[in-house]
Amino acid sequence: MFFALEHTDKNTSARIGKLILPHGEVLTPVFMPVGTQGSVKALSHEDLETLGAEIILCNAYHLYLRPGPEVIKKAGGLHKFIGWDKPILTDSGGFQVFSLAHLNKVNDEGVIFQSHIDGSRHNLTPEDMIRFQMILGADIIMSFDECLPYPSKYEDAEKSVIRTIKWAERGYRCWKEEGGESTSDLFGIVQGGVYEDLRERCVQSLCAIDFPGYAIGGVSVDEPDEEKKRIISFTTPLLPEDKPRYLMGVGSPEDLLFGVYCGIDMFDCVMPTRNARNGCLFTSRGRVNIRNAKYVKDFTPLDEDCNCPVCKRYTKAYLSHLYRAKEISALRLNTIHNIYFMFSLCKLVRKAIKEDRFLDFYNNFLNEYNIKPFSEGDSEIGSTFFNF
Amino acid sequence: MFFALEHTDKNTSARIGKLILPHGEVLTPVFMPVGTQGSVKALSHEDLETLGAEIILCNAYHLYLRPGPEVIKKAGGLHKFIGWDKPILTDSGGFQVFSLAHLNKVNDEGVIFQSHIDGSRHNLTPEDMIRFQMILGADIIMSFDECLPYPSKYEDAEKSVIRTIKWAERGYRCWKEEGGESTSDLFGIVQGGVYEDLRERCVQSLCAIDFPGYAIGGVSVDEPDEEKKRIISFTTPLLPEDKPRYLMGVGSPEDLLFGVYCGIDMFDCVMPTRNARNGCLFTSRGRVNIRNAKYVKDFTPLDEDCNCPVCKRYTKAYLSHLYRAKEISALRLNTIHNIYFMFSLCKLVRKAIKEDRFLDFYNNFLNEYNIKPFSEGDSEIGSTFFNF
Repeated sequence: MFFALEHTDKNTSARIGKLILPHGEVLTPVFMPVGTQGSVKALSHEDLETLGAEIILCNAYHLYLRPGPEVIKKAGGLHKFIGWDKPILTDSGGFQVFSLAHLNKVNDEGVIFQSHIDGSRHNLTPEDMIRFQMILGADIIMSFDECLPYPSKYEDAEKSVIRTIKWAERGYRCWKEEGGESTSDLFGIVQGGVYEDLRERCVQSLCAIDFPGYAIGGVSVDEPDEEKKRIISFTTPLLPEDKPRYLMGVGSPEDLLFGVYCGIDMFDCVMPTRNARNGCLFTSRGRVNIRNAKYVKDFTPLDEDCNCPVCKRYTKAYLSHLYRAKEISALRLNTIHNIYFMFSLCKLVRKAIKEDRFLDFYNNFLNEYNIKPFSEGDSEIGSTFFNF
Repeated sequence: MFFALEHTDKNTSARIGKLILPHGEVLTPVFMPVGTQGSVKALSHEDLETLGAEIILCNAYHLYLRPGPEVIKKAGGLHKFIGWDKPILTDSGGFQVFSLAHLNKVNDEGVIFQSHIDGSRHNLTPEDMIRFQMILGADIIMSFDECLPYPSKYEDAEKSVIRTIKWAERGYRCWKEEGGESTSDLFGIVQGGVYEDLRERCVQSLCAIDFPGYAIGGVSVDEPDEEKKRIISFTTPLLPEDKPRYLMGVGSPEDLLFGVYCGIDMFDCVMPTRNARNGCLFTSRGRVNIRNAKYVKDFTPLDEDCNCPVCKRYTKAYLSHLYRAKEISALRLNTIHNIYFMFSLCKLVRKAIKEDRFLDFYNNFLNEYNIKPFSEGDSEIGSTFFNF
C-alpha cells in the first residue's frame, strides 16, 4: 500500500495519513523542504535529519541542467549523489521551464528552451522528463505539465489543460512501459488556472488515467488570495479520497493550514527558506523581520515558545548582529528556525486532526499568528542582502 | 596556574601544555578558529563544539565598530552575546586598524581612524582597547600594537617597536589597575618586522613588564617564506619558557608545524576557513581545489583517511556540484572539513610530541602533504565565488 489514509477530522476535510515510500514513511500532512539543486539552501542533510525531515523535494529541471543525467546516473541515482537516504520527491520541471528558462518553443510534442544557467539549448518531451526522473530515482515523481502565469485568458488556459492532460498520458505510459512503477510513484498535476470548469475537466481526465497520487499545480502564481483559496477549495474535494493530494508551491503557514482544511496532504514551498535568508522569520506570534533596528538590543529568543536549536541558544540581538554583519551563519540559523517552525506546525496539525479539533487549532493559530500578520513587511521579494 | 607546560619534545623545541582559563582548559599546541565578528564564518557554535573547538578568536576592532561596546555590555559580555561558553581570545585590533581601517593619524597617544564599515571616525588609545576587551570579557586579551606592513624600513620598524612597547606598558597598567586580571590574561605582542635586533629588544622590554603570555605579531604580512621562518625561529626561543607563546595569523598546516617545531603553543589564521570558502581544501595528500573539473565525476570522499562528517557522508562530486551550483551549504561543508583537518593535525602533533617523535611526524607529514603542494593553485586570494 502506498498511501494509508488514517483519519479525517470530524468538522473539516483535514486528514492525516501515511505515505509508504521506498526510502521510508512520511506522516501527512507534510511540509517538504525544497532542495532545488539537491541541497536545501543553507542546510546540510544532517540539519534536516535533526529537524525531523521525512522527505525533501528536488527539481528535475535544475538537476537536468546541472550536474546533468550522466553524472547522476554514474553516481547511482540522486539519493547516492547527494548522500540522502530518506524519501525524495522530484518536480518534473514544468514550472521551471516556464518560469526560469528562456522559452523558445512549446508545442504538443514538448518544449525547446535555453538553460537559465549557460544558455544551452534543450529539447525535451514529457517522456524525457519522466525518464530523467527515473534516473534520479526519486520516490515520487511528477508529470511534466504546462504551467501558465496569472492572469491567463480562458482560451489559453484551456489549450494548456488539454496539453497538460496529453503530456500526463504520455508520461504515464512511459513510466508504466519502462518499469518506473517498481521504484517510484507518479503523480498527475491538475492545471486550469482560476477556471473551475477547466480544473474539473483536468481532474476527470487525470483520474481516468489513475495516477498513484494527484497534485494541484498552477496556484500561488501571483493570483489574489481569494482566487487561490477559491481554486484550492473547489479542486481538492474533486480528487480521489484514497490517493495522496499535493498542493504544489504552497506555502506560508496560513496557506498550508488552509490547504489542510480543504483536505490536502502534501506541501512544498521555498518561502520558509527564502524568507529566512531575507531575515523574515516565523514565530507563534507572527512574523519577525530580524533586520528591524529594535532587535539590535533584544536579548530574548526569537520565539519564547519555540524549542528549535536556534531559539534555545541564541538571542534576537545575536541573530540581528549576524545578519547585519553579513555572516553566512545568519542564513543557516534563520533557515533552521523557519523549517523547524513548519515541521512543528505540521506536527501540531496532525495531532489536532487526530483529536478532531483541527478547526479550533486553525482559528487559534490565525488569531495568535495574526497579532502582527505582515506588520514588519513580507520580505520574500524584498532585499536580497546576500544575493542568494 | 594559568599555563602548564607538560612536555618538550626530545629532538625539537616542540612542546605540549595546557591553558587553564576561566571558561575552560585548552590543550596546546592549539589552532584557534577565527570568529572575527563573533561567528566563525559559515559555522555555528554547535559545529565548532562537534568539531572539538576548545577556544575561538574574536576581533575587538570589528566588535567595537559593530555591534559596539554598549550592546555587548548590555548582553553581559561577549560570551553571553554570542552564546558561546568556552574560552575566547580577543585580538586587540591593532592589526585591523592598520590593515582595514582608513587611518587618519597614529601617534604615541593612540590612533584616529575611520571605520571600514561606515566611515565613522574613531579615536582610540591603547587603554581604550584594553578596556573594551575587558567589557568583552575574553579569557585572553591582547595588547594594542602597531603592526607594520612588509617591507618596512629599519627606522620605521624601530619607531614602531618603541611605540608598541610603550602601548604595551600602558595597556598592562590599565589592565592591572582596573582589575582585568580577575577575568582575563593579557598577552604582550612582539613586533620588529624582519629585524632580529628589534625583535630581541621588543622581547626584552615586554618580558620586563612580565605578561601572562607572549605573542609574535607582524609575521605572515606578505614577507617571503624564508624571512618568516627566520624571524619565527629567531624570536620564539627568546620568549620565556614557562609562558604560553602565540604566533599570530599563522597559518597553513605547514606553517603551523614549523611554529610548533620552534616551540609555539597557539595559532590562529583565517586561511583554513577562507580557503574553504574558495573551494581549497586540505587533505592528508595535499590541497584539493574542489572547483577543478575532474571532481565533477569523482564519487570518492575528499580524503579517504579523514573522519570528518563531510568525508564520512559526501563525495567530491557532490561537493563540486554544491560549489558550482553556488549552494550556501558548500561554504559550510568545506569549512567543516578544513577546521576538522586543523584540529586533527593539532591532535596528532600533541601525540607525536608526547611520544618524542615530533620530528618524524613533521617530516612524514610534509612528504605526504607535498605530493601536490600547490599543484592546484593556492586560491586563498583567488576567486571569491560567493563574495564572502
